[in-house]
Amino acid sequence: MADPVILVLNAGSSSVKFAAYEAGPEGLGSARWRGQVENIPDDPSLTLSEDDRRVVDGEKLRASGVTGHADAVRVSLKRLFALFGRERLIAAGHRVVHGGAEFGAPALVDDATFARLEALIPLAPLHQPHNLAGMRAVAEVAPGLPQVASFDTSFHRTIPAVAYTIALPRELREKGLRRYGFHGISYSYIASQLPKRLSEAERRRVVVAHLGNGASLCAMRDGRSVETTMGFSALDGLLMGTRCGLLDPGVLLYLMRERGDDVESLEDLLYRRGGLLGLSGVSADMRKVLASEEPDARLAAEQFVYRIVREVGAMASVLGGLDALVFTAGIGEHSAEIRERVCAGLAWLGLSFDREASARSAERISAPGSRVAAFVIPTDEEGVIARDAAALATQQLEPVG
Amino acid sequence: MADPVILVLNAGSSSVKFAAYEAGPEGLGSARWRGQVENIPDDPSLTLSEDDRRVVDGEKLRASGVTGHADAVRVSLKRLFALFGRERLIAAGHRVVHGGAEFGAPALVDDATFARLEALIPLAPLHQPHNLAGMRAVAEVAPGLPQVASFDTSFHRTIPAVAYTIALPRELREKGLRRYGFHGISYSYIASQLPKRLSEAERRRVVVAHLGNGASLCAMRDGRSVETTMGFSALDGLLMGTRCGLLDPGVLLYLMRERGDDVESLEDLLYRRGGLLGLSGVSADMRKVLASEEPDARLAAEQFVYRIVREVGAMASVLGGLDALVFTAGIGEHSAEIRERVCAGLAWLGLSFDREASARSAERISAPGSRVAAFVIPTDEEGVIARDAAALATQQLEPVG
Repeated sequence: MADPVILVLNAGSSSVKFAAYEAGPEGLGSARWRGQVENIPDDPSLTLSEDDRRVVDGEKLRASGVTGHADAVRVSLKRLFALFGRERLIAAGHRVVHGGAEFGAPALVDDATFARLEALIPLAPLHQPHNLAGMRAVAEVAPGLPQVASFDTSFHRTIPAVAYTIALPRELREKGLRRYGFHGISYSYIASQLPKRLSEAERRRVVVAHLGNGASLCAMRDGRSVETTMGFSALDGLLMGTRCGLLDPGVLLYLMRERGDDVESLEDLLYRRGGLLGLSGVSADMRKVLASEEPDARLAAEQFVYRIVREVGAMASVLGGLDALVFTAGIGEHSAEIRERVCAGLAWLGLSFDREASARSAERISAPGSRVAAFVIPTDEEGVIARDAAALATQQLEPVG
Repeated sequence: MADPVILVLNAGSSSVKFAAYEAGPEGLGSARWRGQVENIPDDPSLTLSEDDRRVVDGEKLRASGVTGHADAVRVSLKRLFALFGRERLIAAGHRVVHGGAEFGAPALVDDATFARLEALIPLAPLHQPHNLAGMRAVAEVAPGLPQVASFDTSFHRTIPAVAYTIALPRELREKGLRRYGFHGISYSYIASQLPKRLSEAERRRVVVAHLGNGASLCAMRDGRSVETTMGFSALDGLLMGTRCGLLDPGVLLYLMRERGDDVESLEDLLYRRGGLLGLSGVSADMRKVLASEEPDARLAAEQFVYRIVREVGAMASVLGGLDALVFTAGIGEHSAEIRERVCAGLAWLGLSFDREASARSAERISAPGSRVAAFVIPTDEEGVIARDAAALATQQLEPVG
């Protein structure tokens, strides 16, 4: 009999990414099927691979009536079922951006849970609705399939009140205004890898730099999050592809007063027109920014590094010192230049960089004897979601005792 | 003949503070006259001292028709002239919150300069108008008197572009959206003291903690500002009396969307209802917060310290290490408890705290041999403004060559 399959869905603001894993006797390997629908809603197009072989390549879906995220999920599932058969699918795992203060772990999504997730929409109005639309679409196409939510916020539930509390009046704090932190699925994967790859002394006080299109740092003490650079929303902290990160709230007051900006125009500015893109005037893509000779592009790359160096110092101070720095996600895994510039800025902490090791993307990129060790560990958010889904779905399916 | 007198004016949102200095042959001593009008506009009341002796004590000014800042300045000057005579006054120095990107030094205020300062009002709409009202009132009461503006922003003009640039589109940056930094008059005083009080090795990489009702840190390399925690406005950075400091801009988007907050309500919340006051629910005054047993008050004091420790780490990372930490302003000069808790959090940097020295408010509060030295240096913002005014007014009065 063919192995059961676990589906992973990651619905973003203009795309739905998916992956499907076979659950063999040894557990889950890597995803056998992968794909995405991009450019929702303007010009949705589907890409799908099996065993790293492209089987659908940028097929335009507009003609088939696909407009929103739910349609995109329906079409994707139909194509996937043609490859592995509906009956093999035993669970779907979803990346959910916001678990609020309540979800400290992945959760099986029943009607009550779904309602609680809907109640969190005001905390993440640009992302949470898409995540939930994905769940609804799966429920329609595969009624009764166990669905599991893995949260970007859960890993940060160990952050203490002194760090997560926002110093505004109590009535606002009681409505959910606090720092949550994000990228937690990625951080939980990295945390799971620390005992396998770092010595005991190296993994006591660790800063993980998740540097992708979104970017943040997480300070981990003994593998648990104690501080992170993202706060209430995904706007805070480091410089990102299209988000400027950390921003004096006075800037928003100025734009409201001087230009009459409303919430939509501010949101558009802060989520989509700032960051590397807004500063460089060239691109949100670090590779293009680094390749450009434009002075603003050089400044953008310089500020990207500067802000990381500045915030690693802040995280080290919270940890009371630093034993290791871990790079992960797109830029962290693939840009030797950014790693080198960040590590140069952290030499004062006792980080001795091994340039040659970093250039060949070795796992350990600090020199022997470096007081602070440095690593590159590729993240695996989909793998975490798949394992969460498999674990919870199996619990549900198997009779207890 | 009696020595000439220099007036210093500091017009805040609900008060006008003033001081007057005699310029003797040895330069300026300490202020001989001091006073303020508080509770503008609701219930303005005047206090005035001569040689530390109260001569006016909380006189209510409402009946005399005083409502705004200009009236308050007029009444104050009239009372001062009764004490030292109008003819002795040779200059007035003003604290001006915003000098924009252009004023890197104090400036004599002529009509052209005044117009440039007015053009900066959008950058500091809550403070700049009061500063300018003070100048206008002085010009009415003492026509022809040289007036000088000292800026809270000037000292930070040495901050590099990588730190002051806000990663938003160029058209916004060209309108003046950048990080400016504040408390610069205080920092310039401290910078002037470093060569007198710190060894050459100690004053290379210094973080100054200006901890008053407003609070910020300044990273100084060789006595020049290279980074600071306040940014575009005075809202950014550390936890303060009624301001929460550093705040995810997503919080403002949330409040706009969920509660329909407009710019006035957000401004009121962020400037007046957050910080120690909003978090503790007890007071904006650190002494009262420390004295309280309320859990929220303990959390507020804890977060005040935590955020300083976190940001000193960030500043140290920008400086590439830390040689000395200097405490100044109300809390920094007077709270041994806060100093002790901050220094405990910085032990990892090699700061060895001398508790006994700090308890008796010694200048040096680090233990002998401490890798990072620590100091308490009382700030003197009025003295800086008086000296700026005396210097520029004298230049103007004395014929060149």
